[in-house]
Amino acid sequence: MMRYLSARLAQQIDEELMSSAGAFSLDQLMELAGLACAQAVAAVYRKDVYPRVLICCGPGNQGGDGLVAARHLGMFGYQPTIYMPKPGSKVIYQRLQKQCENMKIPVLPPSNDVDDLRKALHDSDVILDAIFGFSFKPPIRFPFDTVLPLLNQSRLPIVSVDIPSGWDVEKGNDLGVGLQPNVLISLTAPKQGVKDYTGRHFLGGRFVPKSLEERFELHLPHYPDSAQIVELDSESSMHKY
Amino acid sequence: MMRYLSARLAQQIDEELMSSAGAFSLDQLMELAGLACAQAVAAVYRKDVYPRVLICCGPGNQGGDGLVAARHLGMFGYQPTIYMPKPGSKVIYQRLQKQCENMKIPVLPPSNDVDDLRKALHDSDVILDAIFGFSFKPPIRFPFDTVLPLLNQSRLPIVSVDIPSGWDVEKGNDLGVGLQPNVLISLTAPKQGVKDYTGRHFLGGRFVPKSLEERFELHLPHYPDSAQIVELDSESSMHKY
Repeated sequence: MMRYLSARLAQQIDEELMSSAGAFSLDQLMELAGLACAQAVAAVYRKDVYPRVLICCGPGNQGGDGLVAARHLGMFGYQPTIYMPKPGSKVIYQRLQKQCENMKIPVLPPSNDVDDLRKALHDSDVILDAIFGFSFKPPIRFPFDTVLPLLNQSRLPIVSVDIPSGWDVEKGNDLGVGLQPNVLISLTAPKQGVKDYTGRHFLGGRFVPKSLEERFELHLPHYPDSAQIVELDSESSMHKY
Repeated sequence: MMRYLSARLAQQIDEELMSSAGAFSLDQLMELAGLACAQAVAAVYRKDVYPRVLICCGPGNQGGDGLVAARHLGMFGYQPTIYMPKPGSKVIYQRLQKQCENMKIPVLPPSNDVDDLRKALHDSDVILDAIFGFSFKPPIRFPFDTVLPLLNQSRLPIVSVDIPSGWDVEKGNDLGVGLQPNVLISLTAPKQGVKDYTGRHFLGGRFVPKSLEERFELHLPHYPDSAQIVELDSESSMHKY
């Protein structure tokens, strides 16, 4: 059976991939992760019906995945818009943002009120949630404590990256304040908190070497052909996408 | 009509993408380029019929694309082997090689004779040619002056990356010493030297922002959906892959 990761194990796998032994750069992993996120959106929400994607980015690496996904969605012919109330401070984050600007992808102006977000939600067809990742720890701080309820109330379909924002990485939405996504794209391997998640569930991040997969007993599913995502079945058999 | 690039323009586009204005890192571009190369191999040569891919890498960035492709082909379930008689000196090259070693992908030992290559060709089903890229200038130096004829004589199917090795980037195989590939995967945009190439021809490198595409009048083809490669038709209409 596929292994659901604790927050600590997810962190450890990430660190090993980017250690001198793993030899990956953050740029590489984020590029493949973000591409997988964009392809998961495209697999479920056709661009002729859901062209306007609002990509909500947090300040950490999860937000970086969101920026990569925004760029690829632009390449695929969607009309992405980026909402990023707390831009990340890392250089990579700024480069990824610049790449989006070169694609003429609009970024909502940073602001402490959520009027722009309200308006953007009104003009969107689907949300990509790249706010909090596996290093999230409650409480949810401002402005995200205001943002998450607004996203849920919008009734737009939500695609969450790795762990729905506001969920505990291990205990799930036990506080009831998290997003309620229609689609989830887990990265590398799913986290314990989404074990009972019943919406459509994809896996991406096809970069875990066999030796590492075996050492951590991940039992990853088989990706079809040369695809970068695989859909997980709720009964644990695999749909071919 | 799609533009075929001079060596100089190919160089200029590459530099612009990685300039502070373009904001891409080499890691990002190489990851997407190498993924496209691996997907082109997989699109034509099924892994149940052609499992053993010999990836021939030069010392430059083209060799880096080959190493990324080797890793992805390993992920797809192929059995890649790397032939790299002149390993690149850049740190990224060493990291990419390490990533392949972590996938247990064998690398032929560096050697000044070609006996190991002969043996590897005998045990391979298809060749991925990532030896020379768009910065290649004749003459072909040792050991590649010996290697290229051996690859042609092997009668194995050859997939060339960007420009078949030994071809002039602008004038093509005018000296007659270059590889004769069955499949070509151009990156970013095709080069002038392959204008009369008649084999199966793919394009990859789906990362050129619209503004740059327009400024250089590239008239890139439309990639289908969320694909990272598109097949070009010899009559310039596009096959959907």
